[in-house]
Amino acid sequence: MSILALAGGVGGAKLAEGLAAVLPPGGLTVAVNVGDDFEHLGVRISPDIDTVTYTLSGLNNQEQGWGLAGETWNLMTSLERLGGETWFRLGDKDMATHIERTRRLKAGETLSEITLDFARRLGIQQPIVPVSDDPVRTMVTTDQGILAFQDYFVRLRCAPRIEKLEFIGAADATPSPAFAAALEAPDLQAIIVCPSNPFLSIQPILSIAGVREALDRRRVPMIAVSPIIGGEAVKGPAAKIMNELGMVVSSAGVASFYGALLDGLMIDTVDARLKDEIAGPAIRVTDTMMRNADDRRRLARAALAFAERLRGTR
Amino acid sequence: MSILALAGGVGGAKLAEGLAAVLPPGGLTVAVNVGDDFEHLGVRISPDIDTVTYTLSGLNNQEQGWGLAGETWNLMTSLERLGGETWFRLGDKDMATHIERTRRLKAGETLSEITLDFARRLGIQQPIVPVSDDPVRTMVTTDQGILAFQDYFVRLRCAPRIEKLEFIGAADATPSPAFAAALEAPDLQAIIVCPSNPFLSIQPILSIAGVREALDRRRVPMIAVSPIIGGEAVKGPAAKIMNELGMVVSSAGVASFYGALLDGLMIDTVDARLKDEIAGPAIRVTDTMMRNADDRRRLARAALAFAERLRGTR
Repeated sequence: MSILALAGGVGGAKLAEGLAAVLPPGGLTVAVNVGDDFEHLGVRISPDIDTVTYTLSGLNNQEQGWGLAGETWNLMTSLERLGGETWFRLGDKDMATHIERTRRLKAGETLSEITLDFARRLGIQQPIVPVSDDPVRTMVTTDQGILAFQDYFVRLRCAPRIEKLEFIGAADATPSPAFAAALEAPDLQAIIVCPSNPFLSIQPILSIAGVREALDRRRVPMIAVSPIIGGEAVKGPAAKIMNELGMVVSSAGVASFYGALLDGLMIDTVDARLKDEIAGPAIRVTDTMMRNADDRRRLARAALAFAERLRGTR
Repeated sequence: MSILALAGGVGGAKLAEGLAAVLPPGGLTVAVNVGDDFEHLGVRISPDIDTVTYTLSGLNNQEQGWGLAGETWNLMTSLERLGGETWFRLGDKDMATHIERTRRLKAGETLSEITLDFARRLGIQQPIVPVSDDPVRTMVTTDQGILAFQDYFVRLRCAPRIEKLEFIGAADATPSPAFAAALEAPDLQAIIVCPSNPFLSIQPILSIAGVREALDRRRVPMIAVSPIIGGEAVKGPAAKIMNELGMVVSSAGVASFYGALLDGLMIDTVDARLKDEIAGPAIRVTDTMMRNADDRRRLARAALAFAERLRGTR
């Protein structure tokens, strides 16, 4: 029996950590967005994969949500002194991940192989799987022009107004072998969409050739945890983007974005009144805010129970 | 009036620092070996250029001789955890130099341009000049096979017995524009060979096409400071290599290695008895050990005075 989780960065990693804690080793595959990946300072950076890996290994900075605990910034400070580009802050410890990944990619290994090996070396018992080994790059059309994702997200701090999102390469990309296998696994029990940004983290996954089709023919429930609580994103620009794209900034907007794809949606208790307004998926109201490890495990159990209740509805 | 210093790593950087301290800005060009340069972990490393740059900027680790003061090693520790290659220890601060150099080389700048700009940004008033912008790579034939220099020097800690040294690319390399200009400068007053390893640091410079010819037709004195004191190298494998190559391990061996190239050789007071044994260059006996900044300035002044005394002998 296995669970497939779809995740982006910080919010996704939190629920993935909860799921990893309550499921037996091998009972969970975490499929992670690669649309935010980019090349910078000569290295390949996979921000969402790293956030999930650092979180599941317990090496993450718990306060900040991303990055490594006890990180230092001496490389960046020295780079600044030499006039280098420092708008994307790479910590000294974090840089090792990018350097080693880049070396192994150049040596011919796939991103999947490298990601799995890093996770194993860091003591993670659940496979972390890039959704594709092919390049998929989120491009943002804004009122300030067409921007590469990290230019929009980090350099310009999400300030430009989004008009359109595109996932360059997605139509020609294939799911990674492990993601494809997880989607078709005979023992698959449920698919859980973590509370990541639907547009920036989950949409690129859904845009990869064959993924939406595989999800359409699935025989197990697919549920999502809404990342919008009380009209605001817990973290990041999801609410701002929904607003700019003319959507209702609430879990109702999230439900309408996912449409027929979802069998169930978990929304926060503060949004309980939305339960009767949302058409389509079954709704489960619960405390979705993950402040600590207990919250993450509790929400993971609630998501698994919700999915279990929806079994047989497909 | 200008002085041209030829330098390798630690010993060379010390005298270069002394020369830079006692000469007016612009009165010194430090031409630095590139035979130790290599590509590792995806970046271009120029150990001798960096040692000279860090030393002249005062950012160097004074105790250790190489590397940066207050260096941290978090990248290496994290790389080790991921199973990466850690035999060549790159500090977090130091790594910024390699990353930025690599980025700029890929963008089409020459090593000379980058090195000069780094020195300027770090407040160094004297040009630091790679001897060539073309690849020159020291290869070491040993009893354990043919080794790239850093494999021999760092990974195997100079343990293999050297049979032959080759400087791959040197015959096809041209001196960098600033090194060529310094060699032919109308106001050149003297050429000072710093107490670097003659075989590993100076020989690759002399092997670059046209360098030996330019030195042969010079009209100014060329002197060297011997790196061998009392039959031992102050630092590094010079004595071991001299022994393996069947040379006398003393300043006499150094003199015979440089041969007719030198007008003068400075030897240490502990080797004063060699003064009458060394045929060829004029000999100046002085305290050549550089323990601190005062020593470096004193030796620099002594070298300049010695060269001045030899003016007109060519």
